[in-house]
Amino acid sequence: MDIQDLVRQLHIKNDSKIVMLVADGIGGLPMTPDGKTELETARTPQLDELARQGVQGACIPVLPGITPGSGPGHLALFGYDPLKYLIGRGALEATGVGFELQPGDVAVRCNFCTLDQAGRITDRRAGRISSDESGPLAISLRKISIPGVQLFVEPVKEHRFVVVFRGEGLEGAVADTDPQATGVPPLDPIPQDPASQRTAEVAIEFLRQARELLAGESKANFLTMRGFAGKPHLPTYQDVYGLRAAAIAVYPMYKGLARLVGMEVIGQATNLSEEVDLLAQHWADYDFFFLHFKYTDSTGEDGNFEAKVKRMEELDAIIPRITALQPDVLIVTGDHSTPAFLKSHSWHAVPTLLVSRCCRPDHCQQFSETACIQGGLGQFEMRYLMSLALANAGRLAKYGA
Amino acid sequence: MDIQDLVRQLHIKNDSKIVMLVADGIGGLPMTPDGKTELETARTPQLDELARQGVQGACIPVLPGITPGSGPGHLALFGYDPLKYLIGRGALEATGVGFELQPGDVAVRCNFCTLDQAGRITDRRAGRISSDESGPLAISLRKISIPGVQLFVEPVKEHRFVVVFRGEGLEGAVADTDPQATGVPPLDPIPQDPASQRTAEVAIEFLRQARELLAGESKANFLTMRGFAGKPHLPTYQDVYGLRAAAIAVYPMYKGLARLVGMEVIGQATNLSEEVDLLAQHWADYDFFFLHFKYTDSTGEDGNFEAKVKRMEELDAIIPRITALQPDVLIVTGDHSTPAFLKSHSWHAVPTLLVSRCCRPDHCQQFSETACIQGGLGQFEMRYLMSLALANAGRLAKYGA
Repeated sequence: MDIQDLVRQLHIKNDSKIVMLVADGIGGLPMTPDGKTELETARTPQLDELARQGVQGACIPVLPGITPGSGPGHLALFGYDPLKYLIGRGALEATGVGFELQPGDVAVRCNFCTLDQAGRITDRRAGRISSDESGPLAISLRKISIPGVQLFVEPVKEHRFVVVFRGEGLEGAVADTDPQATGVPPLDPIPQDPASQRTAEVAIEFLRQARELLAGESKANFLTMRGFAGKPHLPTYQDVYGLRAAAIAVYPMYKGLARLVGMEVIGQATNLSEEVDLLAQHWADYDFFFLHFKYTDSTGEDGNFEAKVKRMEELDAIIPRITALQPDVLIVTGDHSTPAFLKSHSWHAVPTLLVSRCCRPDHCQQFSETACIQGGLGQFEMRYLMSLALANAGRLAKYGA
Repeated sequence: MDIQDLVRQLHIKNDSKIVMLVADGIGGLPMTPDGKTELETARTPQLDELARQGVQGACIPVLPGITPGSGPGHLALFGYDPLKYLIGRGALEATGVGFELQPGDVAVRCNFCTLDQAGRITDRRAGRISSDESGPLAISLRKISIPGVQLFVEPVKEHRFVVVFRGEGLEGAVADTDPQATGVPPLDPIPQDPASQRTAEVAIEFLRQARELLAGESKANFLTMRGFAGKPHLPTYQDVYGLRAAAIAVYPMYKGLARLVGMEVIGQATNLSEEVDLLAQHWADYDFFFLHFKYTDSTGEDGNFEAKVKRMEELDAIIPRITALQPDVLIVTGDHSTPAFLKSHSWHAVPTLLVSRCCRPDHCQQFSETACIQGGLGQFEMRYLMSLALANAGRLAKYGA
């Protein structure tokens, strides 16, 4: 029995409101041995006040030393064991461009590539062709037609695009066609089990027609397919937690991840202030709100320490508009760390703050990487954050008599 | 392999003595945002001295956010995974009134109820009939006789009583008869598997005779049955730990829980001082002593902050009599938190203190919720406390070469 099995049995309903504010990639590192992290450098009086009222902890997204992608990071935040539930690469890519996968769909991440006259790969990424050039090429592939199958082709970025097959009898266990080498032809899409035979046939026909359509193109005259994947089977927030959950995000990836666990995506916010507008407008309609702030991650990925500090301060400034709504439980956290020092996601524990009227405050005076390791929640696996949220909201009954 | 599998292989014997002093519901919360907890408010010089000598940690009884009942809380203290070992409601109720379940028994929690003339339930709890009135009614049901089955009926409190069936071929998978609604008749006891067919037949006959016996009663003229359960199959302290273990408690529930894991219940103490008398008298006879102090929980349940503080001080004052016996390992902990602020059990981590000559002391100067999160044992699942106890007692061999 894992934590979700337990919570499914124990959850009860009440009128409480839970807000989970996710600053993507919030955790950081100092740029110099004696320096401070981005969060510690930022002036964050509002978050520090919450730190005094609430309880902190250091969340381990997956397991110690494991750096999560956005998929596993958010699954853990949402309370799903990221080692148990996997979102295939194709499904994540489709989700990331806002494509709503349906049960039975198979999504495939594709890369444009170049072939020589003998059909051998010369560049596996077509020279990282620009999005301006690759977009129209991807859209031209919408001309492909295969009887009995509905096809969707969506540009992603540079050499990447996504193809979705929709039809009867499709499963996702098909091998990649990218040989991971140049000077050799692409591989055939080989089914890995009998149930995926039809998918492999569809892929072969798709590739045959694509080869004809792209034959005259100079920048990219073929493609490889990677990460065939169906829609993941995830239990819903309603089922596991008994929560009517709303997701508020700017970027399609995070809306898509939230949709996979049964949250309703609300509004079309383009910035944090508009996200909080939506929060206030829909306050009565939901029990749980996932509010996603992207820019603490993207500035970290850029290695721009100062910009990440500023984004922290932007986040801090919005807090009073959230606390004014008087959530019963307010959580501030991230799905992983993205230190500007590393210019990438990292494995470091994520500073996590929880405020409620019964959260047993600790002595932390500041919200930070250094403070959180002294916090009352200790270090804990991120997938336990949701059970703590529910407990603090009075939404979990006692286990056993 | 879980911790008990490992400890079963590694335990060795020596002359050490381990005392586990359990202050039920010890963990608390401040009553006001800037306040102190019950334990922090209490004057506890003895416990604070132990804190300076020993090492502290914050125990998570089950998993983060999960509030345990007494059953799971004590199983975790005793080193049994509370998600793996379940004590059914009937078995816990029988245990709670001091009934010694035998293998093959099936225990049932019963509620007196009232029926109208058409046999429909009018009150599922018979107006929460007083214990003075329900006790004789329960005892009157001892007249029931069923061939081949030994019957036990024990009053519990108000509308609650417990029935135990003892005989050949009885299993506990029978559905509740409480329809969880009024205006409808009670349900039949339906077997959930073939092995429980006989139990269901016995229950039907019990209910038939009970209906006749109670027909003329005004306060409660029938009963419902809930939580059919056999004796749980728990490995023993002797088997897992190689310990001769004694339990010293005032209340039947805790004696019963200890008995389920193979501890011997000693004496008939009526207060903490008498419990410590028993500890001293039986010091030579056992390796491990579980000493249970109830009142930190009951005062918390009452929401009586000041009374809980006083009970902490009572506990503190007894410590010198325990340390005078020179236990090799002394643990002070609780089975869960019971903050007066919440008037109920809660999920909050439990301050836990371990003193031994080799415990690697930390910097904690006080025994408290705030201190323990800085303690050398960190936050850990309660089910690991027993292996720490054994290790500190020199009772665990090296794992692997």
